[in-house]
Amino acid sequence: MSNVKVANHKTGTSMYKAWLKYYRLENKELLTLYKQLLREVAVAEDSVITANAVNELKTGLYGLLGIKPVFSSELTGEAGLVIGTIEGSKEISGLLSADEKDSLGEEGFIIRFKTENNAGRLLVAGKTNKGLMYGVFNLLRLIQTETAPQALSRIENPVNQLRTINHWDNIDGSVERGYAGRSIFFKNNKITGNLSRINDYARMLAAAGINTIAINNVNVHEFETLLITDKYIKDVAKLNEIFRGYGIKLFLSINFASTLEIGNLETADPLDGNVRQWWKDKADYIYSHIPDFGGFLVKADSEGRPGPFTYGRTHADGANMLAEALKPHGGLVIWRCFVYNCQQDWRDRTIDRARAAYDHFMPLDGKFQDNVLLQIKNGPMDFQVREPVSPLIGSLKKTNQLLELQITQEYTGQQRHLCYLVPMWKEILDFDTYGNGKGTTVKKIISRDTFKNNYGGFAAVTNIGDDANWTGHQMAQANTYGYARLAWNPDLSSEEIAEEWIRRTYTNDSKVVDIIKGMLLGSWKAYENYTSPLGIGWMVNPNHHYGPNVDGYEYDKWGTYHRADHKGIGVDRTVKSGTGYAGQYHKEVAEVYESLEKCPEELLLFFHYVPYAYRLKSGETLLQYIYNTHFRGVEQVEELKQNWLGLKGKVEEDVFLHVLERLEGQLSHSKEWRDIINTYFLRKTGIPDELGRKIY
Amino acid sequence: MSNVKVANHKTGTSMYKAWLKYYRLENKELLTLYKQLLREVAVAEDSVITANAVNELKTGLYGLLGIKPVFSSELTGEAGLVIGTIEGSKEISGLLSADEKDSLGEEGFIIRFKTENNAGRLLVAGKTNKGLMYGVFNLLRLIQTETAPQALSRIENPVNQLRTINHWDNIDGSVERGYAGRSIFFKNNKITGNLSRINDYARMLAAAGINTIAINNVNVHEFETLLITDKYIKDVAKLNEIFRGYGIKLFLSINFASTLEIGNLETADPLDGNVRQWWKDKADYIYSHIPDFGGFLVKADSEGRPGPFTYGRTHADGANMLAEALKPHGGLVIWRCFVYNCQQDWRDRTIDRARAAYDHFMPLDGKFQDNVLLQIKNGPMDFQVREPVSPLIGSLKKTNQLLELQITQEYTGQQRHLCYLVPMWKEILDFDTYGNGKGTTVKKIISRDTFKNNYGGFAAVTNIGDDANWTGHQMAQANTYGYARLAWNPDLSSEEIAEEWIRRTYTNDSKVVDIIKGMLLGSWKAYENYTSPLGIGWMVNPNHHYGPNVDGYEYDKWGTYHRADHKGIGVDRTVKSGTGYAGQYHKEVAEVYESLEKCPEELLLFFHYVPYAYRLKSGETLLQYIYNTHFRGVEQVEELKQNWLGLKGKVEEDVFLHVLERLEGQLSHSKEWRDIINTYFLRKTGIPDELGRKIY
Repeated sequence: MSNVKVANHKTGTSMYKAWLKYYRLENKELLTLYKQLLREVAVAEDSVITANAVNELKTGLYGLLGIKPVFSSELTGEAGLVIGTIEGSKEISGLLSADEKDSLGEEGFIIRFKTENNAGRLLVAGKTNKGLMYGVFNLLRLIQTETAPQALSRIENPVNQLRTINHWDNIDGSVERGYAGRSIFFKNNKITGNLSRINDYARMLAAAGINTIAINNVNVHEFETLLITDKYIKDVAKLNEIFRGYGIKLFLSINFASTLEIGNLETADPLDGNVRQWWKDKADYIYSHIPDFGGFLVKADSEGRPGPFTYGRTHADGANMLAEALKPHGGLVIWRCFVYNCQQDWRDRTIDRARAAYDHFMPLDGKFQDNVLLQIKNGPMDFQVREPVSPLIGSLKKTNQLLELQITQEYTGQQRHLCYLVPMWKEILDFDTYGNGKGTTVKKIISRDTFKNNYGGFAAVTNIGDDANWTGHQMAQANTYGYARLAWNPDLSSEEIAEEWIRRTYTNDSKVVDIIKGMLLGSWKAYENYTSPLGIGWMVNPNHHYGPNVDGYEYDKWGTYHRADHKGIGVDRTVKSGTGYAGQYHKEVAEVYESLEKCPEELLLFFHYVPYAYRLKSGETLLQYIYNTHFRGVEQVEELKQNWLGLKGKVEEDVFLHVLERLEGQLSHSKEWRDIINTYFLRKTGIPDELGRKIY
Repeated sequence: MSNVKVANHKTGTSMYKAWLKYYRLENKELLTLYKQLLREVAVAEDSVITANAVNELKTGLYGLLGIKPVFSSELTGEAGLVIGTIEGSKEISGLLSADEKDSLGEEGFIIRFKTENNAGRLLVAGKTNKGLMYGVFNLLRLIQTETAPQALSRIENPVNQLRTINHWDNIDGSVERGYAGRSIFFKNNKITGNLSRINDYARMLAAAGINTIAINNVNVHEFETLLITDKYIKDVAKLNEIFRGYGIKLFLSINFASTLEIGNLETADPLDGNVRQWWKDKADYIYSHIPDFGGFLVKADSEGRPGPFTYGRTHADGANMLAEALKPHGGLVIWRCFVYNCQQDWRDRTIDRARAAYDHFMPLDGKFQDNVLLQIKNGPMDFQVREPVSPLIGSLKKTNQLLELQITQEYTGQQRHLCYLVPMWKEILDFDTYGNGKGTTVKKIISRDTFKNNYGGFAAVTNIGDDANWTGHQMAQANTYGYARLAWNPDLSSEEIAEEWIRRTYTNDSKVVDIIKGMLLGSWKAYENYTSPLGIGWMVNPNHHYGPNVDGYEYDKWGTYHRADHKGIGVDRTVKSGTGYAGQYHKEVAEVYESLEKCPEELLLFFHYVPYAYRLKSGETLLQYIYNTHFRGVEQVEELKQNWLGLKGKVEEDVFLHVLERLEGQLSHSKEWRDIINTYFLRKTGIPDELGRKIY
């Protein structure tokens, strides 16, 4: 068992408990059933992870059922729960069939319910203690969401191997693109002492299936560079100990120029012998303190960060040098593909930032060591509310890949707006790349189903901070949870995930569940409606990225343009007449994007310059569509608010008031978006709204 | 004499010496003449200020002439210089006629050259030691600029009473709107110890005629609030001692809410007895440490600062409360009129920020104590490259007034662009307000010539920082110098001031002087050409205000709009159909601004919404004018650079390279301005340049 006590955070609000709330079952029948069933628990396993799982079981069952079961090594009565691992217990092994055992992977679990002699017997087992832990967390989830004992039985293995959370936390305590307070790890250039909160965080992550975490920002500054030195390594080890107890591997973002900055070398050239030796020694050093250290996350040659380009080397050279150092210890290198020219001249229409990741990395396919993963942003730009899927995914065949998503709502309302992102992620995961013929969806590539690479999985930039409710907007917890659940199983639907989260967070009252589910499921589309139309993106204020500014990035160096004039808007990315980006996809996809008629309308302006008078399939002109969706988006926020108002008395008062306040802010700000966008296009075109609504 | 030694700054560059360079006279004839004339100096005066003047004379004459004159109390030979004050020496008094004495004000000086018996005798005298000091500084200026002895004689009094410099320095060392490094006064929440540099700064200011300084930012934060407490008062007194030695009064910006923040009171209500008493006690306290303390500078109820509005009081109530406290000690309250609604809704066209200062302060005319001055920004907005004169000036009749200018180039290129502001200030000073009939120019109002108020004068936000050359761009020293000279005598021409500055800074070589003078005099117009057209302003990036962004402030809360659509641009501020701002001027002025035809074209878009097809007096359409001036502006910067390149070898190499680097940056950035502005209007109108030049 971890040496850190599980404790409630001092704020003590129910929002702090997130999806580990374990409120008492409302269904009296089920309550009685489970009280009966779970009077006794036999534990056939001894390890830190299992002890944490047992602890969670105690906390959970006391909350859910109001009982303190008897824990022993063997059941004394007919009814009860047995938990253990195949590896750790012959008895458990003996309870399972050969088929069952074969179907359990390293992190998989089985829950099996049997009725014998009028009594119920429940088994939760894993091949390993990690699997067992997931089994326990899932059992608690299933009870909380009112699953009948007869419906509990299942075998589950996580679909994805790496299920990663990235923190963009700086050691001064700030969080890049953080909207929920300060870092939970760092403060004033120190690793903070609030280990009990970090333990609670590890519980939350493990409960949802996360197994990897990078704790510091990919932009590694002066002090963060020292995380892999005596100054900080012991404190990093302490954090690792907490996460280890929940089966979570800890990674650090490192500074590619470490040899220069802390290594007393005059180069960071990845082919230089001294540099390579320095990193080997550094890896030995790190593993001597943290034997199960995960590895390095690296942002190189991007937005001013150092990298192999400085020395005329490739990114494969850079990544492989680090991989070689970590390899003897089983460590991984996760190398980000967010590399582009951020000193672009807006006048030059031949350069296209969207092309950059493919152009840089596609020639390197097959050249990376087998313990290197490329971490690829879902879209070619940067987490806009709507982007096509990166053409790298489905093109790279001989390279380990992580899909990078963004939970923190940098461009999607910064946790002041409700924007449930799971439907967006689902569209990405289900996108057919045709990378290995029809049906090569993104989720099949990153799960390694298609190309059978060594490693694969999910990564995402988290929305967590030290706000009492973790995520600023309490309902943004649904995104943290939803991401983790999708990483575990990308076939779960947006609706299922929403419903799980609501039932764990608020209530099982089906009317309430339906209302909140409706709110969540409609929120992304509403946000898209009142912000940036048809895939064009970037109509935001520079730097902080909050709020409307149509020309904010139009004449800037970042490669982010809409090219609107008085006749039309959009970026021509066709092969025929544009930047050629559409040609980076496989033929079947490229043909669709290349064609103005076939291009999915939600991405129309990403791929084509389109006159305002162009008729969409709905019959609306492009301009009228912009007006209509912006008016509609605000109406949808008004509906969100009305729906929430109907929940007064049905959710806790502090939660009710907190969410209401955010929704009111969202409503006011959505009007700001509507009016600025509509006014911009009215002023530019002189063509009024056909319905005569007020545009300023 | 001040206890601080005059020393060169450690950087030791010639740029550090600014207009006190005292380089050796190039004209051999004059050099011989002055060496002869100034072998001996008699000083009939003893005070700190005079000692500083004598010290300056020694430094100056050694530099200019290479001599170390004999200093005594009486001349021994026929030739020589006598300096002293009427107040301090009967002998000096005896040398002057009654008329001469009558014409000398408190800060005035006389320089008189007489030839007797084939020898020259020079007299420099003031009524007071301050006047004497100005006389000495002016003598050195006249010699440096190659004035023959026969042309030295003059009597001068400063036209304006208060000649004030405002520092927007924060005590953490940052400078709000500073573009020349960090504060020269403050660092890490301490008053810095570099007193020798501050002494040099005081010399520079006094040499140009400044007699008042406010050392801290008008936005008074936590630590600055403590400047009037034990924590800092002794260090403030040390700074005061330096400035005192050069006749400069020291002011502090204060926090109107001091009683709340450091006074243990629960209110800052200016009519509350305890608050009034607190400020009286505070004034007593300050004067016990600094007997000649100048007074308070106050920004209240502005951009989030606290003020009397919080308590339903007027600004007269607020200012008079402080004035009452300072009055027994002879202190002044300088109260800024920069009060407006900075939470404006861009959709609401009835509110006009330009109206705010007049609307707030005009009803209070005559209600301020006689030791209160209102500090009024030159224009109604905020230091744009072109604004009309504030209608408050010429309307207030019974109120002491300071004109506030901005030397620091917040909106005029941030000292990366060359922009000599004296011509702009001259236009402001010569503007006829008709406040007391025709001829009531701004300069006559603030000099108190028109309304005979108690106090008046100039204030300006400085461009000084701790860069080795003080101002970032070395040529920006011309603005610091020019401001001070205009405050002394607003009838000096832009050309005269430029020429003085060039001759003191670089050389008396008339070819070089002419080239640099041409560069300075054309630079404001060039900057206006390639930036924001015809008085509309605000086409800059928000917050930092550098670089083009046409819509940057268009949909924001700051009240700063251009209202451009596809047909035209401009803000209708007429009485007939607009915000009514034009009606705040006296009838003769209002009629001109109200009329589209009569309105000066450089302010056309400030007062009128004008179609792009409108023909200007030149025959160009408004749109073509925008294109033409933006192409022209860049050409002018190209000319600036070419002119400077011609000076290689004629100015010091480090200066040459430094200015060249800035000009190259300006050239590149002016193209950015040109292309973004032109593209914006081309995209909005679809109408190409008549001359077919490249617009992107």
